[in-house]
Amino acid sequence: MLDVYAFATPNSIKVPIALEELGLDYALHSVNVRQGEQKAPAFVALNPNAKVPVLVDTDSDERLVLTESAAILIYLAEKSGKLLPASGPERARVFEQLFFHASGLGPAFGQAGFFQRQASEPQPLAIQRFTAEAARTLAVLDGVLGTRRFVAGDAFSIADIVHFGWLWRRAFAGVDFAQSPHVARWYAEVEARSAVQRAIARVNALLPQA
Amino acid sequence: MLDVYAFATPNSIKVPIALEELGLDYALHSVNVRQGEQKAPAFVALNPNAKVPVLVDTDSDERLVLTESAAILIYLAEKSGKLLPASGPERARVFEQLFFHASGLGPAFGQAGFFQRQASEPQPLAIQRFTAEAARTLAVLDGVLGTRRFVAGDAFSIADIVHFGWLWRRAFAGVDFAQSPHVARWYAEVEARSAVQRAIARVNALLPQA
Repeated sequence: MLDVYAFATPNSIKVPIALEELGLDYALHSVNVRQGEQKAPAFVALNPNAKVPVLVDTDSDERLVLTESAAILIYLAEKSGKLLPASGPERARVFEQLFFHASGLGPAFGQAGFFQRQASEPQPLAIQRFTAEAARTLAVLDGVLGTRRFVAGDAFSIADIVHFGWLWRRAFAGVDFAQSPHVARWYAEVEARSAVQRAIARVNALLPQA
Repeated sequence: MLDVYAFATPNSIKVPIALEELGLDYALHSVNVRQGEQKAPAFVALNPNAKVPVLVDTDSDERLVLTESAAILIYLAEKSGKLLPASGPERARVFEQLFFHASGLGPAFGQAGFFQRQASEPQPLAIQRFTAEAARTLAVLDGVLGTRRFVAGDAFSIADIVHFGWLWRRAFAGVDFAQSPHVARWYAEVEARSAVQRAIARVNALLPQA
């Protein structure tokens, strides 16, 4: 059994997308981060870093509890033999994009949204810094997608899934695709995949009804 | 031939440490980020993201230019068959720690240092936010190292090398190990490795003499 603890967040969505793309069954459990449930003792026992998503795999001999969305995607890809090239430059490109997202685009989008929307007092220099960094990293990705169909080459991979996470939630960071036509083209193609649509529907169903 | 473009920075140091641990020959080329050389056109042609380090591998049939320090470490580990377990939970733990560093501890240390030291005007809430996040992520790592000899298990791996990078430069983030005895114990053991000492000497030699 694969259990996923998640919510409708940029990092959470990556795991259901990968599971739907790989055709693996899973149970999706809500951790309402708007109500701080990721800081509850029972959840912190699963992930001491107090972040969604978490994967629990009880199919293996030993129960595996795994955190960090990109690490979960690598685990699922290697378990399935799909979405991650086994060797060669194409494999290196996937890891390069996973870390460009994890250390660059993702944190920039997250901090831009925080300082634009959630800080208790305005911090003009911080808003400027992270808004500029979100635009800069998006432009870097646009350059990549000007030369490739998918972010790591000709084939759809887990690297596309990780970038999709924060680009799906780009409005939080005040970002749009007006200056990044290659990203816009790629995003439309990824969003139209039936597995991606199924994953979005499942995580959106975790949101409390208004 | 392996060419490394780097400077004495938290992310740069990871690559020479891995190369020294793996016993691979390499040429180290200085990119003085204090003088902005990472933004020069010749360097941006290597890495459009304008960051050190970059690895250029001309040993392969096709010349490979690779960015993102953790992606470079995975590439070198897989090329050598060392420092990254081939399968099992131990492998998943390495990736989990690589991404915890890339998306969590690393950005927190970097932003804490920036707002404490380099921002053109004080941004008190930003200083508080990132200083607290640096302390929080260090405490999470201390919890991990309270149960394991190395960050991903019993064996030294590329995950130890990535965490070492920012912990080596912890003073920039205003961080010390007073509240993290397990990190202190682990850091002393890693720092004492002869390969780590050789790598530190090589990147420090890139610094202009006063």
